[in-house]
Amino acid sequence: MSKINLQVVLATCALSLALGTHAKDSPESKAIAALEQRLAALEQRVTLQEDIEKVRIVAFSYGYYMDNVLYDQVKAMFSPNIESCELAGYGVFIGLKGCSRMWTDLIGKPLGADRNQLAFGRLAKHYMIKDVITVAADGKTAQGRFDYISMGGTFGNNEATGSQIDVYNFGFVKEEGVWKIAKFWMAFDTINYNQRDWATNPKIRCPNPAVPPDAPPTFHHPFPETGVIPFHYPNPVTGKPVQAPVTDTRYWIGNWPGEFGKECGKRAEKLP
Amino acid sequence: MSKINLQVVLATCALSLALGTHAKDSPESKAIAALEQRLAALEQRVTLQEDIEKVRIVAFSYGYYMDNVLYDQVKAMFSPNIESCELAGYGVFIGLKGCSRMWTDLIGKPLGADRNQLAFGRLAKHYMIKDVITVAADGKTAQGRFDYISMGGTFGNNEATGSQIDVYNFGFVKEEGVWKIAKFWMAFDTINYNQRDWATNPKIRCPNPAVPPDAPPTFHHPFPETGVIPFHYPNPVTGKPVQAPVTDTRYWIGNWPGEFGKECGKRAEKLP
Amino acid sequence: MSKINLQVVLATCALSLALGTHAKDSPESKAIAALEQRLAALEQRVTLQEDIEKVRIVAFSYGYYMDNVLYDQVKAMFSPNIESCELAGYGVFIGLKGCSRMWTDLIGKPLGADRNQLAFGRLAKHYMIKDVITVAADGKTAQGRFDYISMGGTFGNNEATGSQIDVYNFGFVKEEGVWKIAKFWMAFDTINYNQRDWATNPKIRCPNPAVPPDAPPTFHHPFPETGVIPFHYPNPVTGKPVQAPVTDTRYWIGNWPGEFGKECGKRAEKLP
Repeated sequence: MSKINLQVVLATCALSLALGTHAKDSPESKAIAALEQRLAALEQRVTLQEDIEKVRIVAFSYGYYMDNVLYDQVKAMFSPNIESCELAGYGVFIGLKGCSRMWTDLIGKPLGADRNQLAFGRLAKHYMIKDVITVAADGKTAQGRFDYISMGGTFGNNEATGSQIDVYNFGFVKEEGVWKIAKFWMAFDTINYNQRDWATNPKIRCPNPAVPPDAPPTFHHPFPETGVIPFHYPNPVTGKPVQAPVTDTRYWIGNWPGEFGKECGKRAEKLP
Repeated sequence: MSKINLQVVLATCALSLALGTHAKDSPESKAIAALEQRLAALEQRVTLQEDIEKVRIVAFSYGYYMDNVLYDQVKAMFSPNIESCELAGYGVFIGLKGCSRMWTDLIGKPLGADRNQLAFGRLAKHYMIKDVITVAADGKTAQGRFDYISMGGTFGNNEATGSQIDVYNFGFVKEEGVWKIAKFWMAFDTINYNQRDWATNPKIRCPNPAVPPDAPPTFHHPFPETGVIPFHYPNPVTGKPVQAPVTDTRYWIGNWPGEFGKECGKRAEKLP
Repeated sequence: MSKINLQVVLATCALSLALGTHAKDSPESKAIAALEQRLAALEQRVTLQEDIEKVRIVAFSYGYYMDNVLYDQVKAMFSPNIESCELAGYGVFIGLKGCSRMWTDLIGKPLGADRNQLAFGRLAKHYMIKDVITVAADGKTAQGRFDYISMGGTFGNNEATGSQIDVYNFGFVKEEGVWKIAKFWMAFDTINYNQRDWATNPKIRCPNPAVPPDAPPTFHHPFPETGVIPFHYPNPVTGKPVQAPVTDTRYWIGNWPGEFGKECGKRAEKLP
C-alpha cells in the first residue's frame, strides 16, 4: 500500500473510532443520561425529606420561643410575605403588618412581652404534639397541624393553674433556601382546662376593641361547642378531604358566621 | 494494498471498534453498572425515610380523627387484612370484622360515635407522644410505639376532668404503595389520672359482656399494678430485646393469665 | 501492502481504539466521575436524614426506659466517653463514672431503681415533646432539645399527683455506626406543677450531700425564678444564636453563680 493509502486507512480508522466512541446513542451515553435523570429525581426526594425536618425545627422553635416570651425570635421567623395571623376569637390580622401588631399589642403583656423575657413568677409552656407536616411537591411551601396544650401558672395563685387546649394550623414558605412562617392560626378547644370550674364556667375569647383585627375570625367554637378544626391535608389512606362539621348546638354568641362585631359571650338561652 | 486488503483492514478496524466500545467489561460499562447498583441501594434508603414520615402521618391522623370522633376516617385507614384490635382489658378483636365491631359497638358512644361527630359539651383529646417508628428492611411493614395521654371532660361536670395514660403499639402495612393500620393495641397505665381520687380509687376495664372479644386480653395491668408494656424493638445501642417483666404484686383479678371470663375487678385481699 | 504493513495498521488501529475508549478525558468518563461525586454527596445527605431518625429513637427510648425504671437499658445507651450528666440542682456528674453514680445512687430509688423495675403502686411517665434534633455536618455528633413533662403519682396518695416540667439538652455521638448518649442535662422549670399548692409553695432541688457532684450546677432557676434554658442551636431563620437571659429577680439561694456549697433553699427576703 502506498503511504497515502496507509494514511487514509489510519485516518478513517481514527474517525470511525471517534464517531463510534462519542456517538450520542451509544449504550453508555444513554445509560449515563438515564442515571443523571434518576439521580436528579432522587435528589428532589431527599430535599423534600430534609425540608420536613427543617420545617419541624421552625415549628418547634416557635413553641420554645413562646415559652420564653422571646417574641423577637418568633417575629424573625415570619416571612415578609406572611399571609395572616389568627388566634382564638380575636380575628384575623393580615400581612406582616397585622401579624406584628398582633404580637406587639395583643398577646403576652402579662407574661413579659414588653421585655422580650418571661416575667418572674410566670410559667407558660407551649407543648406542640402530633406534628403532621406536609411539603408541597414543588418544595416551595409547606403546612403543619399540631396539637397545642399549655401548662401555665402564676406565683402565689394556685387557682390560676390551667391549660389551653388548641390546634395550630401553620403555613410555611421556603425563601432563598430558608423555611419561614407564612401563615399562623391557633384555634381553641378550651382556654381554661383543668381550672377548678372549667367545665361549668368555660370561657371565650372575643375580639379586643383596643386591638381590632383586619377580618373576622374564621373559626372559633370553644368548649362546650364542638367542631372539627379544619384539616389542611386529606385522609392519608383514602386521599379524600376530611369534612369539618361544626356541631350545631350553640352556647356562645358573637363567634358564629355573621355575628362578628356584635355582642360576644354566653348566649342567655342555652340549648342543649 | 489491494482493494480487498483495504476493505479487510477497515472491516477489521470497525469490528474491533465495535467490540471495543461495547465490551461488557470496559471500564465505563463497569463503572455505570456500579453506579446503577449504588443508586438503587440509595433509592431504597430514601424510600424507607419517606415511609417513616408517611407512617407518622397515618398514626397522628388516627389521633386527630379520634379527637373529633371521626370514626369513619379511622376505619378507612384499616388494612382489609388488619390483624387485630385491642383496647385496655376489653380483649382482642380479630380481623377487619372484629376491629369494625370494636369501633362500632364498644367505644365512643357517649362521645358521639353514632353521629361520627364529637358531641356538644364533650372534650376528648388524644395526645400521641414519643413516636418510635420502625420500618422493616423490605419496606412492607412497620411498627410504632407511642405514649397516649388524653385530656377529657364533660360540660357541667368538673369532677369528670381527667386523663387516660396508656401506650399504643401499632402495626402498619404498605398495600399498593399506601400505608395502612395493620394492628391496633392500646394498653392502659391508668384510666382516671388526675381525677380527685384516682390514686385511692383506681379503675380497671373488664371485658364487656355485650361486646365480647374474640380472644382474651394480652396484657392489662392498670395502676396500681405495674409492668412493662412490651417493646416491639430492641435497645437501639445493644441491639438486644428489652425484657418486659410484670411486677408480681397483684391488685386486680380477672386480668391475669387464666382469669379471663371469670370475676373481674378489685381483689378482696390487697397484698402490698 | 506487505504483511508487516497490515500488522502495523491493525496494531495502530487497536492502540488508537484502546487509547480512545479509555481516555481519561472522554465525555463518558467525565460524566461518570461527576455522577460518582453527586451520588457520594447525596449518600451523605441521606445518612444525615437517617441519623436524625436514629437519634430520635435513642432519645425517646431513654424516656420509655425511664418510665419503666429500666435504668440498665438507659445506662447501656451511654457512650463510654459520655461527657457529663446533670439533673436539676444536684450538680454535674462527670464522665461514665459520674453518670453511672448519678443513676445508681442519686435517682429513682423510691420508684424501684434497685430492682430495675417500676415498683407496685407508682406511676412516673416521662413525656418528651418538641423534639429538635440537629446532626453535625460531619455526621459524628448530634444534639437534641426536648420538653419534658412528667405525670406521676403514688397509690393511696392523691396529694402526690403532680408533674415535673423541664427541658432536656442531650448530646449524642456516633461510635462504630451506633448512636449513643454523649451528654445528659435536664433543667427544671418546676418540680411540683399541678400539686395543690405548687404556685404558693414551689420547690428547689439542692445538691445531695450523700451524693456530691463533680462540679456545681450549670443552670438551676426553678419557678418562680425564670430564665431561658440555653439553646444548642441558632434561630433557624436568622442563623444567629439565641440569647439566654436569666431574669434577675431572685427567689432562691444556693443556685446562683458562686453560691454552690453554701446554704440552699428559699431566700428569707423575697424581692417581687
